[in-house]
Amino acid sequence: MTRQELVYQIFSKNSYLCTGLDTEMEKLPQHLPKNDDAMVEFNRQIINATLPYSVSYKINTAFYEQYGARGWVWMEQTLDYLPKSVFRIADAKRGDIGNTSTMYARAFFETLNFDAVTVAPYMGEDSLRPFLEFKDKWIICLALTSNPGHADFQTHAYEGKKLYERIIETVCRWGYPDNLMFVVGATRAAYVAEIRKMIPEHFLLVPGVGAQGGSLSDISQAGLNKDVGMLINSSRGILYASSGEDFAETAAEEARKLQSEMTEHLAGIKH
Amino acid sequence: MTRQELVYQIFSKNSYLCTGLDTEMEKLPQHLPKNDDAMVEFNRQIINATLPYSVSYKINTAFYEQYGARGWVWMEQTLDYLPKSVFRIADAKRGDIGNTSTMYARAFFETLNFDAVTVAPYMGEDSLRPFLEFKDKWIICLALTSNPGHADFQTHAYEGKKLYERIIETVCRWGYPDNLMFVVGATRAAYVAEIRKMIPEHFLLVPGVGAQGGSLSDISQAGLNKDVGMLINSSRGILYASSGEDFAETAAEEARKLQSEMTEHLAGIKH
Repeated sequence: MTRQELVYQIFSKNSYLCTGLDTEMEKLPQHLPKNDDAMVEFNRQIINATLPYSVSYKINTAFYEQYGARGWVWMEQTLDYLPKSVFRIADAKRGDIGNTSTMYARAFFETLNFDAVTVAPYMGEDSLRPFLEFKDKWIICLALTSNPGHADFQTHAYEGKKLYERIIETVCRWGYPDNLMFVVGATRAAYVAEIRKMIPEHFLLVPGVGAQGGSLSDISQAGLNKDVGMLINSSRGILYASSGEDFAETAAEEARKLQSEMTEHLAGIKH
Repeated sequence: MTRQELVYQIFSKNSYLCTGLDTEMEKLPQHLPKNDDAMVEFNRQIINATLPYSVSYKINTAFYEQYGARGWVWMEQTLDYLPKSVFRIADAKRGDIGNTSTMYARAFFETLNFDAVTVAPYMGEDSLRPFLEFKDKWIICLALTSNPGHADFQTHAYEGKKLYERIIETVCRWGYPDNLMFVVGATRAAYVAEIRKMIPEHFLLVPGVGAQGGSLSDISQAGLNKDVGMLINSSRGILYASSGEDFAETAAEEARKLQSEMTEHLAGIKH
C-alpha cells in the first residue's frame, strides 16, 4: 500500500486505529469451540466488527508461532480474510544478515502479502535494506518501545544522543517517509513530541494505548502531522472487551470509541 | 540440554562444529526432485552425513518461513529428525515485550523443542527473561554480528564502551554461563579475543567461518576456554560443497576437515 492510499483510507474512515490481532486461545470467549478453527473464527468476527473503525490490522507473529506450522496456517487464513483496503502489519521484529533478511522480506511481503513488517535495527543497514527493495511495502523499525526494558539500552547515551535517537537518524538515511515508519511506545507522550520534531514526516506506529497505559489524547496531540503520520494500536482493549457471546459487538464499541476520539483529532488537519 | 551435556558431546565427537541448515530450494542438487519433500530429504541426508563431525545444528528460520506454513512443517520435520544428542539452535533473532517473548519461547522451546534460540537485545530485560525461565534451554544473544551492518551501531561508543560490550555486560546480569551464549561474528578474531577476556566462561556462537571469510584457526585460538566455550558454525561451506549426486559425501568431507582441525585445537584443553 502506498502512503497516499494509507492517508486516503485514514480520512475515509476518520480513523488512524490499528487493531492488533494478538489472539490467545486461552482468552477466547467460552462459547466458541476450542478447535483448530477457533482462532481464525474469532479473528474473522473481530475483523467484521471493527472494520468500519480500523484502518489497519497488526498480527503479532509470536501469538501464532507458538502453535508451530498450524499457527502459521491460522495467520495465513486471518490475513486472507483482511480486505486490501486495510494496512496489514506483521509485527515480527525480524532482522538478520542481508541474504537472510531477503528471505524474511519474501516471507512477509510475498508469501503472506503483508504491507509492512516490524524490524529490529541492531544488525544495521544490510539487515534492513532487503525489506526496502519491495515496491509499496514498508518497514516499521523499533525505535522506542513501550515495555519496561526500553530503559535498558534505548534511552542511554550513545554518541552524544540517546541510542534510539541515533537509530532513527541513521535508519532515515536508508528509507523514506514512503516506506519507513518507526515504533514509538505510547506510554511516554513527551518522547513522541521529541521524535515528531526529529522526523516531521514519517509515520509512527504507536503501541501501548489501553492495556499498557498510554493516553490516546496525549499521544495524538504530540504526534499527529499534516498527513496524520500515526497509526495507534490497540489489541487487548478491543479483543477482550467482553468474553461473552457479545464479544464482537463489544469489540466494535471499543474500536468505535477510539475512532470517535480520533475523528476529533483529525478535524484539525487540513487535507 | 545442559552445559555439562554439551561439553560432554563436544569431547565425545572432538568437535565444536555447528552445521547451519540454511537450506535453499534453488541450491538443492539437480537430481533431487523439486517437490514438497525436497528440503527435508536434503536436510536428512546432510544430517546423516555430518552427524559424526557435528555437535550442533542451527536452523535459520528465515529460510523456512519464506515458504509460509509449509516451510514451518519442513522445519518441524527437520527438527524431528535430529537426535537428542545434538544441540539444536533456532537462529530466529526474536525479541519482543515480555508476554510476547513468552510465546516465542514456547514456540521454539516447547512446540519445536530446540535447545537454544538466538535473540536480539534491543528491547531489554523483559524481552529476554521469558526465554531464560525454561529449564535447560538457552538464549544466544546478538553481540557482534558478522555482517557489514555490524559497524552501523554495534561498535559505536555507548556510555564509554562499545555498544556490543555494554550489551554483553548488561545481558550477563540476566543469565548465566549455563543458559546464555553470545553471537560473535568470526570475521574479526581480535574482537573474539577481547570478548573472551570480558566473559571468560560463556559459550560463543560464531558464524561467519567459510563463506563469510573467518579463519577457524584464528577464531579458535582467540576464543576457546577450559570448557571449549565455542560453537563454530558453517552453513554454505558444508551444504553446497557439491551440487552433484555426491553432495552428502562431500558435505561429510567438509565437516570432517573442520572437525579434524578442531580436534587439534581441543587437544590443548584439559578436561
